Amino acid sequence: MYPDVVRDERFGKITAEDIEYFRSVLAPGSVLTAAEEDLSGYNIDSMRKYHGQSQLVLKPRSTEEVSLIMKRCHARKLAVVPQGGNTGLVGGSVPVFDEIVISMSLMSKVRSFDEVSGILVADAGCVLESTDQYLAERGYIFPLDLGAKGSCHIGGNVATNAGGLRLLRYGSLHGTVLGIEAVMPDGTIFDSLGKLRKDNTGYDIKQLFIGSEGTLGVITGISIFCPRRSKVVNVAFFGLESYEKVQQAFVKAKGELSEILSAFEFMDTASQEQVARFSELRRPLDEAHNFYVLVETSGSNRVHDEEKLQTYLEGLMESDIIADGVLAQDETQVKNLWTWREGIPESLGKSGGVYKYDVSIPLDELYQLVEDTRVRIQEFGHDIGTEGSNVVNVVGYGHLGDGNLHLNVAVKQYDKQIEYILEPWVYEWIEKRHGSVSAEHGLGFAKKPYLKYSKDQRVIELMRQVKKVYDPNGIMNPYKYI
Amino acid sequence: MYPDVVRDERFGKITAEDIEYFRSVLAPGSVLTAAEEDLSGYNIDSMRKYHGQSQLVLKPRSTEEVSLIMKRCHARKLAVVPQGGNTGLVGGSVPVFDEIVISMSLMSKVRSFDEVSGILVADAGCVLESTDQYLAERGYIFPLDLGAKGSCHIGGNVATNAGGLRLLRYGSLHGTVLGIEAVMPDGTIFDSLGKLRKDNTGYDIKQLFIGSEGTLGVITGISIFCPRRSKVVNVAFFGLESYEKVQQAFVKAKGELSEILSAFEFMDTASQEQVARFSELRRPLDEAHNFYVLVETSGSNRVHDEEKLQTYLEGLMESDIIADGVLAQDETQVKNLWTWREGIPESLGKSGGVYKYDVSIPLDELYQLVEDTRVRIQEFGHDIGTEGSNVVNVVGYGHLGDGNLHLNVAVKQYDKQIEYILEPWVYEWIEKRHGSVSAEHGLGFAKKPYLKYSKDQRVIELMRQVKKVYDPNGIMNPYKYI
Repeated sequence: MYPDVVRDERFGKITAEDIEYFRSVLAPGSVLTAAEEDLSGYNIDSMRKYHGQSQLVLKPRSTEEVSLIMKRCHARKLAVVPQGGNTGLVGGSVPVFDEIVISMSLMSKVRSFDEVSGILVADAGCVLESTDQYLAERGYIFPLDLGAKGSCHIGGNVATNAGGLRLLRYGSLHGTVLGIEAVMPDGTIFDSLGKLRKDNTGYDIKQLFIGSEGTLGVITGISIFCPRRSKVVNVAFFGLESYEKVQQAFVKAKGELSEILSAFEFMDTASQEQVARFSELRRPLDEAHNFYVLVETSGSNRVHDEEKLQTYLEGLMESDIIADGVLAQDETQVKNLWTWREGIPESLGKSGGVYKYDVSIPLDELYQLVEDTRVRIQEFGHDIGTEGSNVVNVVGYGHLGDGNLHLNVAVKQYDKQIEYILEPWVYEWIEKRHGSVSAEHGLGFAKKPYLKYSKDQRVIELMRQVKKVYDPNGIMNPYKYI
Repeated sequence: MYPDVVRDERFGKITAEDIEYFRSVLAPGSVLTAAEEDLSGYNIDSMRKYHGQSQLVLKPRSTEEVSLIMKRCHARKLAVVPQGGNTGLVGGSVPVFDEIVISMSLMSKVRSFDEVSGILVADAGCVLESTDQYLAERGYIFPLDLGAKGSCHIGGNVATNAGGLRLLRYGSLHGTVLGIEAVMPDGTIFDSLGKLRKDNTGYDIKQLFIGSEGTLGVITGISIFCPRRSKVVNVAFFGLESYEKVQQAFVKAKGELSEILSAFEFMDTASQEQVARFSELRRPLDEAHNFYVLVETSGSNRVHDEEKLQTYLEGLMESDIIADGVLAQDETQVKNLWTWREGIPESLGKSGGVYKYDVSIPLDELYQLVEDTRVRIQEFGHDIGTEGSNVVNVVGYGHLGDGNLHLNVAVKQYDKQIEYILEPWVYEWIEKRHGSVSAEHGLGFAKKPYLKYSKDQRVIELMRQVKKVYDPNGIMNPYKYI
């Protein structure tokens, strides 16, 4: 599968005794072998891009069971891959060779929820959507939301430091996760499952697990601060003529909508034409504009929120920042307006293939990357969107509030020549602006070569030193970015 | 000064050549020796509790100068103490023996501020209050506020993971700090001064510096996400009859004031009587209550905010959660109401000495510690507040929204017997509830023996491993908690 990667010969190979041991310490049905079952659901990721060859899947039901598994793996130098909902986009949650898959799917209980403080303690294998549902029934919200919520695990979200749609309002997991319980590579339990918003007693080691992508230990439980769920959600959608005006609208939104602002998404005109091509919905605005913005507010008082949003839009009109705009009148309209943002990836995929870049760039230069990419593609002799050209569209959109751009290049078919035009040029462009080559998706197996574009050599060294002391045998999720 | 602590003989002693070297690489006036100047301001903390014996203070003006200093110290195994505003409460920022003090006071420039994203990049030595003033002029706010703001440095705030008054609203520094630049013990520069809200490219090493208290490297610059400054601030103050009702009022505040809630401070009746004893202000409420709460809101629309707060207070009255309450009518009243919370430490100090515990405890048991402390003191034969007794008062107050209790035991004079009644009993009490023995102040030199009450042994081991690989000679702020 991967001609350039070689199995690490330090790792042991699974024996009949190992399997017998795992059967002796785990509940019936928790040890799945390739001889008896089809393990492809664990070996292949949800995009079907990465294929591992694991012969053994273990499904522990408790932290103690994970500890027993890791003690054996430590003694026998057996490599492992912790796996949550397996919805990652960078091949981080599937094996490369014969690593044992530790599936967290049977550890899915809420351990406690404090309705006064809003602090939730739950198993790593809880599905994001059902956890959020549990909280909704109690008037609270999980401070993270993303497309894969129906399958992804909250432990996996923490392991990959997922960003998603609510970051603008509730901040990153580095701020909201209060505690982590994990099993270390040697089977010892890292118990830092605090339920405290303030705790200044030494290095905050649990932070290293947030974004570690399974390379330091198996996260078995998390403690997280959940805010109250907003009672009212409003959405506005408007057109603007320049990226400058998009930024002006954002500054005004932060000033006037401030505490109720919950999303500020921008889309360029190319992305909206692409959605329109495949959508049966009428476009929200009559005329075409160079840019579009979707603003969402979430608050506790309908009258107040609508008044703020109305005043904001009127102010934008008066100062000529926006050319036209609409306000959703009911939940259906809210959903329809979101389609013009959320439908972009699907509409792009209908052309054939898509080269996707999920990057962070300082706001003032964010859209420049899209324009430079168009120029570069044309300089190499490719038209964009003409009948004879392989390049169908180059679009930019994303979470402006987070400085997170999605640059997508849609092609009729994948073509190494187009790839060579784009890479590593895109990463070098980002490096010059001190941006990030992976804003939300992580590095996993796919982006291993690109770490150097976002992290200084000394920082990478410090990362490697941590990996080496915490996982001296390197058995935790090997062959990945570290 | 410290009979139980011995100077580490691995460390070099400063020679004339060292001083000559430092003079050759630093600007004139940046090398202060005990032979020529009085260094007590650098050797003694602001409470005058801890006294070091440093013979040399260095005041670098750039990250490169800090790097040159540390390269020399690395080669010569000279121990150092990074020092910000020297306002810490646990003796972390002063030397113990002859460590070199690296004062950051001359590195105090704002490097950049992006008025669109709200991201500030600044030298570590910027004073918190002047930095906040710089932001105020641009409509933004530093997401941290605390009593020592006139002297403390933002680099020191990050190094100690300061909590303070705005945490309830803006979250902890682990979420708001986006980047750190630091000089490692060997003089290499850790450059992770990103200006990105999202960056998922490997372990977030900079998080280790947040709360490291100068034991991993010298923080020279930070990048931080600053929210828009609220236009309107309102304050309400009310009386309640039980701690249960305080919690109920808090839950309702999160539901109804939600996005504009910026402080929820509680005080017990003993603390208010103490303030009244020394204050010339009229008490805000006519009658006495068992508990008092100060609620602050910060928002963008005066009419909306006042309506929300009014509705909230009426609801509390109707459901008999509060017995009485007032709303500040102007800025003077806002300030006066805050006096009843902020004046507590000073009024307690007027009795003689104060045993102070700054702790985090899960909310439901938070006030129980105060009651149990009173019982324990009485069980050991001490009356509280009677004429003949040394124990003047036992009070509880704090940031309820953060689960942060200040337990203060005021005495006429410090007495080892009282101390033995309280310690380690208080810490053991907290350990049983998985609380934190230091919510905001850190550990430094003072709380070194108490780490074990808040951190699991395995977690302490992982902390030590990081310390050992990043600072193999142990020259960074030695003799402190790690």
